[in-house]
Amino acid sequence: MKAVAIHRDSDTPELVEKPRPEPEHGEALVRTLRVGVDGTDHEVVSGGHGRFPDGADHMVLGHEAVGVVADPNGTGLDIGQHVVPTVRRKPDGQTNDYFRRSEADMAPDGQYVERGIVGAHGFMAEYFTSPADFLVEIPASLAPYGVFVEPLSNTEKAIEHAWAARSAFEWNPEAAAVLGNGPLGLLTLWRLTQTVDRTYCVGRRDRPDITLDFIDEVGSTYVDSRETPVDEIPAAHEVVDVVYEATGYAPHAFQSIEALAPNGVAALLGIPDSWTFEIDGGGLHTELVLDNKCLIGSVNSGYTHFEAARERLEAMPTDLLDHLITTVTGPENVAPAFVDDDDQIKAVVAFGAPQAED
Amino acid sequence: MKAVAIHRDSDTPELVEKPRPEPEHGEALVRTLRVGVDGTDHEVVSGGHGRFPDGADHMVLGHEAVGVVADPNGTGLDIGQHVVPTVRRKPDGQTNDYFRRSEADMAPDGQYVERGIVGAHGFMAEYFTSPADFLVEIPASLAPYGVFVEPLSNTEKAIEHAWAARSAFEWNPEAAAVLGNGPLGLLTLWRLTQTVDRTYCVGRRDRPDITLDFIDEVGSTYVDSRETPVDEIPAAHEVVDVVYEATGYAPHAFQSIEALAPNGVAALLGIPDSWTFEIDGGGLHTELVLDNKCLIGSVNSGYTHFEAARERLEAMPTDLLDHLITTVTGPENVAPAFVDDDDQIKAVVAFGAPQAED
Repeated sequence: MKAVAIHRDSDTPELVEKPRPEPEHGEALVRTLRVGVDGTDHEVVSGGHGRFPDGADHMVLGHEAVGVVADPNGTGLDIGQHVVPTVRRKPDGQTNDYFRRSEADMAPDGQYVERGIVGAHGFMAEYFTSPADFLVEIPASLAPYGVFVEPLSNTEKAIEHAWAARSAFEWNPEAAAVLGNGPLGLLTLWRLTQTVDRTYCVGRRDRPDITLDFIDEVGSTYVDSRETPVDEIPAAHEVVDVVYEATGYAPHAFQSIEALAPNGVAALLGIPDSWTFEIDGGGLHTELVLDNKCLIGSVNSGYTHFEAARERLEAMPTDLLDHLITTVTGPENVAPAFVDDDDQIKAVVAFGAPQAED
Repeated sequence: MKAVAIHRDSDTPELVEKPRPEPEHGEALVRTLRVGVDGTDHEVVSGGHGRFPDGADHMVLGHEAVGVVADPNGTGLDIGQHVVPTVRRKPDGQTNDYFRRSEADMAPDGQYVERGIVGAHGFMAEYFTSPADFLVEIPASLAPYGVFVEPLSNTEKAIEHAWAARSAFEWNPEAAAVLGNGPLGLLTLWRLTQTVDRTYCVGRRDRPDITLDFIDEVGSTYVDSRETPVDEIPAAHEVVDVVYEATGYAPHAFQSIEALAPNGVAALLGIPDSWTFEIDGGGLHTELVLDNKCLIGSVNSGYTHFEAARERLEAMPTDLLDHLITTVTGPENVAPAFVDDDDQIKAVVAFGAPQAED
């Protein structure tokens, strides 16, 4: 079967031919429909994040997938059922308490692999296998947008944790700022418009721009960080109860503290490289304390977050979802999917037209 | 009546004579038994924190008080009932949602005053008045140690919020580090020994030392930060699930991130001055994200936290409580209570022997 992989000595994804996988006991065989590309994939391709499978000279890419069950293999799934796979898997098949509790997203380094990212082949192939317990059923109507379930699940987790951090008191957030106008930032921006009254999206673009159009469409306010740094959002607009950081720009983690309203929370999702710089550590420390503020890091997502993302996406207007998909290409011509410029939001690698499975 | 106050042009607490206050409607008159001195009082005395009452040339000190009801004034309290007052009050008597919800500890700057700290006279006087709703009843047996209810209530709040921040997943903390061996740090250290298996207390002292003796007594491990900086606790001992910062040393807020285990939380309570320094902001940002870590600031405490502190203190061995009280002096000779050296843990200003009220 066709697959898209990155080799150890390369920074260019390539079409490779691999045998179709055979499902093991407890696994189903899934025929892939679409696989999305995100910032983590770009990091994996450039060698900045992740790890190849042990002993392999290549890794199949892709962790944002949607497919249909081709062979349930006795798992209780139905042939033709649309599914989205979660990302983390047991290392060498060895379980631990995080997997037993369905909280693999909270497992520390070494207690998981991540398909297409850390130590395991991804989903960017005509077929993949997965334990049925890691396949989230979605309605057929959501299949064209199924690649958004995984990224939005990361947001659902971050929001769950951020809100939990404010659950010991009465908290009624009214304003939120999303840092980053990439696909995750824009998806999260829409998500937050469903929860708070006023939203801001921080980027570094000039109009006309397809991401700024999206920001307008969802009724959010664009903040150009070249004019208004994150810590000046309160002066230019207002303090915000929630910051959602999806830039991986390290100063944002600390500037967020100053953007927050009293009792606010900043959820961090970016993964910057080591970078030493100066901060007013005393002032930020005091601001965290006297205003009861919170900084919370969040990575990956669990089964329940995928379910929450599925419910959210079913409520999202399809014209907004269509706006986010800027490239659909096949595995034979995968280069356009890995272009990362201002005309790209979400690129999708599509594996053939839907077929009848039975 | 006698009171201990600080004048605007002074950094030395003085005995002053003030009229005994008259309780307003809804208030009780309380005869003061003891008032503790803590780091915030030292900050107030030195002019580093807080604010004088509007128009006043002095502020009566003290926010850690215990007393007995001298005149219930129709509030439903009983004469002779032992009480501890909470600290925050409505500014100019004007209420707001935070007070309505009994969450004044979450009110932002401007929506509260703090007795003895921010814009309101404190409790370090022979009598004080307070709305009965801000008086926490304690058993007579706890009266000698009633000055510990307020500081421990701050810890109960910080713990409640820190645990809430980890409530979206299964979290079983086993190890905790308290940064600071002052009275709040030591009290919290004992508190945490009741909740986690292994505790560490970070200080900068040589043996023999009364605080290090306390650390030994509660079965905790002393960490000398001159040899083992906070971010090296994992290498020297182990990663910890909880950090409780009570030093006000700004780098500790950031070093704590590196001391934490995956999924850990650092509660910050110190209030340092502005101080610019370098950090590996990229590395810390990434560590927060990939390990799902959390930094949470906490200030003040609400009524329920005072109740929780009361329950905890009733379970604390009196020999440990006695160990913490290093000075008991009267308002006429208050200087020893404001000495802040290595022989001091908790100093108490006592206002006469217990009397029968009725």
